Amino acid sequence: MQQKDNGTLISYRPDIKVVDCTLRDGGLVNNFRFSDEFVKDLYKANIKAGVDYMEFGYKASREFFNEDDFGPWKFCDEEAIRKVVGENNSDLKISVMSDVGRTDYKNDIIDRKDSVIDLVRTACYIHQIPTAIEMAEDAKKKGYETTINIMAVSKVNDEDLDNGLELIGNSSVDVIYLVDSFGSFYSEQIKRLTDKYMNMAAKYNKTVGIHAHNNQQLAFANTIEALTNGASLLDATVSGMGRGAGNCYMESLLGFLKNPKYNLVPIMDLVEKHIQNIKNEGNVWGYDIPYLLTGILNSHPRTAISFIGEKRGDYSKFYQELLDIE
Amino acid sequence: MQQKDNGTLISYRPDIKVVDCTLRDGGLVNNFRFSDEFVKDLYKANIKAGVDYMEFGYKASREFFNEDDFGPWKFCDEEAIRKVVGENNSDLKISVMSDVGRTDYKNDIIDRKDSVIDLVRTACYIHQIPTAIEMAEDAKKKGYETTINIMAVSKVNDEDLDNGLELIGNSSVDVIYLVDSFGSFYSEQIKRLTDKYMNMAAKYNKTVGIHAHNNQQLAFANTIEALTNGASLLDATVSGMGRGAGNCYMESLLGFLKNPKYNLVPIMDLVEKHIQNIKNEGNVWGYDIPYLLTGILNSHPRTAISFIGEKRGDYSKFYQELLDIE
Repeated sequence: MQQKDNGTLISYRPDIKVVDCTLRDGGLVNNFRFSDEFVKDLYKANIKAGVDYMEFGYKASREFFNEDDFGPWKFCDEEAIRKVVGENNSDLKISVMSDVGRTDYKNDIIDRKDSVIDLVRTACYIHQIPTAIEMAEDAKKKGYETTINIMAVSKVNDEDLDNGLELIGNSSVDVIYLVDSFGSFYSEQIKRLTDKYMNMAAKYNKTVGIHAHNNQQLAFANTIEALTNGASLLDATVSGMGRGAGNCYMESLLGFLKNPKYNLVPIMDLVEKHIQNIKNEGNVWGYDIPYLLTGILNSHPRTAISFIGEKRGDYSKFYQELLDIE
Repeated sequence: MQQKDNGTLISYRPDIKVVDCTLRDGGLVNNFRFSDEFVKDLYKANIKAGVDYMEFGYKASREFFNEDDFGPWKFCDEEAIRKVVGENNSDLKISVMSDVGRTDYKNDIIDRKDSVIDLVRTACYIHQIPTAIEMAEDAKKKGYETTINIMAVSKVNDEDLDNGLELIGNSSVDVIYLVDSFGSFYSEQIKRLTDKYMNMAAKYNKTVGIHAHNNQQLAFANTIEALTNGASLLDATVSGMGRGAGNCYMESLLGFLKNPKYNLVPIMDLVEKHIQNIKNEGNVWGYDIPYLLTGILNSHPRTAISFIGEKRGDYSKFYQELLDIE
């Protein structure tokens, strides 16, 4: 296969797209309860910063989730998004995430011509790929750009992953996402997996995205590792806000990218205005020893989130508990 | 040149050595004022954790620095170290750092047979290499293991660096350190530089070390990138304590290494007992936007340290100031 030209540290690739997931992954920290002001400021900052996509949240079904338990971005009603973006007369595209088994996609994803949404991302585990494909095909038919994000691939063996990628390859989906759900991958593993995803993408004329977590403080490093090896959709959040250890920092990513369209300043202004306030409301995310440990052990961060929520500090005991679970 | 076998993610290389720099680089945060209890606990934790070297601080000359302005680890008197380690009947080796132009090495570095110190590391800028070699040769003659750590190589052109490495290659020094003083390197730059250092090391039968800073949250990523490409001495500090954005976290590094001699638990216990207390004393270090900016701009972190010391939050203004300076 011909080697793709991935540029140098001082050039840029026009195919690179930055996806802001602050409301969606950050919403897992505060149950999607962002102030209206923050959401509007984030939208404006993303436009000014040259960010390519802004993900507003999940298209969760009210059949499975109680509206009182969450802020509006768990559901991403069309009217809620329009209240922020109007007709979205900007270059920033709007994304939502639909989860396999949690989204009533047949009813809740309307035709794109009636929506301000541009991109529907479908998240699934390896065994849910057939369902995810059905959902993504439905979105594609309705006119959307589509991705499938295979979660928790650090738990998946190579044979299953190869087979899953082939299934996706044969579908109409536009982008396949490499997702390090547990923040357990080192850069050389990200390189190997990106190569695998890129080979499939080249074969089926698709592109590859990367979504990293910061358990080992490797979210940014792994994002640029995937980029260097050909990935073109890059997920990031403001100040890394996201579940547990959080994500790749938008600040770091925009500071790295050389395309003149990107501008770090509006994001820094947003951080100055809002992030400390969001933290002061009791929202906690970011690198900490418990997340490091679940990352090293390739485990779901839920135990670490509890540990930190309980303000425990007995790391060694927690480590022993984790080893028991494993 | 024959490819060195750098192992896999589940094997280990016996040549890897971990160097704890908490007192030395962390001392730049608190002017080397650590409690005696912390220093003793750190020493014990390093022994239990299988850490290979513990750097106690600088061998600064009292001719240049006033004793009242600093804690004891700015000077690392023999008696001060012995008060902690006695005869150091352990596998943990003791290191000190001597800075070109700030150390009265002829008088203050005594014969190794009379000292508990094992390793003398000499830090220099590129133009100080001849002086650094003279200092390292002096230490070597006195019986010590030696390193030369070329600081701020992100500001050095390839020709000067090649010439500097040749000079060091022709000296008696044991280890050449790749130092990312400003936390400005991305992993692919670390790979290229590690290759350069390794080529010189192979030619002259030396080994290579890595000392990284966390301005872009890449200290750990860059440390394992250098390791993967052959570096064998790895610097880290407890919770990344170090000037500005700090260093590679010892917790992450020990969590990565597979040699059964290493044990993360004593370091986690030390963090639990001491680190929050040290922070509560007003000591601030770690990733933050101002350090990201000086990292991106390949600048000394002193402006960012002032910004944070003054509790400023106007990142965009600071960025403009930095661009003016550059």
